[in-house]
Amino acid sequence: MAGRVRVHNFSISLDGFGVGEGQRLEEPFGHAGHRLMQWALPTRTFQRMGFHGSDAGTVGVDEAFAGQWAEGIGVEIMGRNKFGPQRGPWTDHDWKGWWGEDPPFHTPVIVLTHHVRPPEPMAGGTTFYFLDATPQDAIAKARTLGDGRDIRIGGGTTTVREFLVADLIDELHLVVVPILLGRGERLWDGLEGLEERFTIEAVGSPSGVVHLTLARRQADG
Amino acid sequence: MAGRVRVHNFSISLDGFGVGEGQRLEEPFGHAGHRLMQWALPTRTFQRMGFHGSDAGTVGVDEAFAGQWAEGIGVEIMGRNKFGPQRGPWTDHDWKGWWGEDPPFHTPVIVLTHHVRPPEPMAGGTTFYFLDATPQDAIAKARTLGDGRDIRIGGGTTTVREFLVADLIDELHLVVVPILLGRGERLWDGLEGLEERFTIEAVGSPSGVVHLTLARRQADG
Repeated sequence: MAGRVRVHNFSISLDGFGVGEGQRLEEPFGHAGHRLMQWALPTRTFQRMGFHGSDAGTVGVDEAFAGQWAEGIGVEIMGRNKFGPQRGPWTDHDWKGWWGEDPPFHTPVIVLTHHVRPPEPMAGGTTFYFLDATPQDAIAKARTLGDGRDIRIGGGTTTVREFLVADLIDELHLVVVPILLGRGERLWDGLEGLEERFTIEAVGSPSGVVHLTLARRQADG
Repeated sequence: MAGRVRVHNFSISLDGFGVGEGQRLEEPFGHAGHRLMQWALPTRTFQRMGFHGSDAGTVGVDEAFAGQWAEGIGVEIMGRNKFGPQRGPWTDHDWKGWWGEDPPFHTPVIVLTHHVRPPEPMAGGTTFYFLDATPQDAIAKARTLGDGRDIRIGGGTTTVREFLVADLIDELHLVVVPILLGRGERLWDGLEGLEERFTIEAVGSPSGVVHLTLARRQADG
């Protein structure tokens, strides 16, 4: 059985934006600032990812979801805008993502871009591969790189939407944050009727966010 | 203390549409069909509103929210599109809303329209008043008609949004239905930063919807 294609901890505003306007080096989420990921920071999973490797952190419903992101994953696919703020041809080859020398992925990571460049092996098992490919071809490449284990679609918003439109995603975990961004990139555009393909569940968290899970319906028979 | 301005049981799709495209006599919610209000139909409150006055119906979290819509309300304000499918000058004066001879409101109801017509008293205490007014003026008129009791903003989507933009709403109960409509009227347009004015809570229901409540933050001091 082929590995599943999963999305985890993908946060959107109440009005459906996965990123604000004006992404740049100082503001990876544009005018959204840190507000979309704030729910996750107190969780044990995100505390452990922090600089101190702390074992502190919450263990409630936010952690129950946040902690699922790495288990069984053999490879991540991300859009170029998640990798960094540069657009067009690479002018700064020293840029190797927002995450420093030891990124938290610890697997191969495919970065989708029209401007390919050589792979970037990092500490801790992460290697960035730069691929100019359709979603379908990216999945095929990921199956090889990830050794048949599950594939995580890491974002950003455009990438998740494109893989949804292409019907390539099996499981999504979304987090609806109670803020209204008003502008940026919408996750849901062009996805009318998506619910026919997925079983959808929702649960509120004391932190104020809502965890949504979408699981592909099993084919009959 | 002036009555509060409240919204109840207002349903939107996951992608933020309060009504689909193509509202007409046979489809009050356009291509959304009955899907936006389906969560409410099994509740005791909506069962009682039905033709049979049944006492059957669910009593869980959906009912806990649904049942709050009438208590303390002295008047409703609705947009013309909630009242009916006609546009422009009234051509069918026999049209007195979707609800038959005895509408479920049992209070004065202000219908906002550029085409005023005489009041329509109905059975059971409902009277429709047709008013060409700004949201502010409509609230002033409602305070009189409703004898100082609470005012319900009944919809549709444009009307709720206009009253939110004008900062005239104190409490909203929204229901997020796990469907993607893709087109229609969006509730959230033009409301960036709304969360600064409201305390927002969310709770999932076994029926699959999410109940969101927005309560105006109390002024300091």
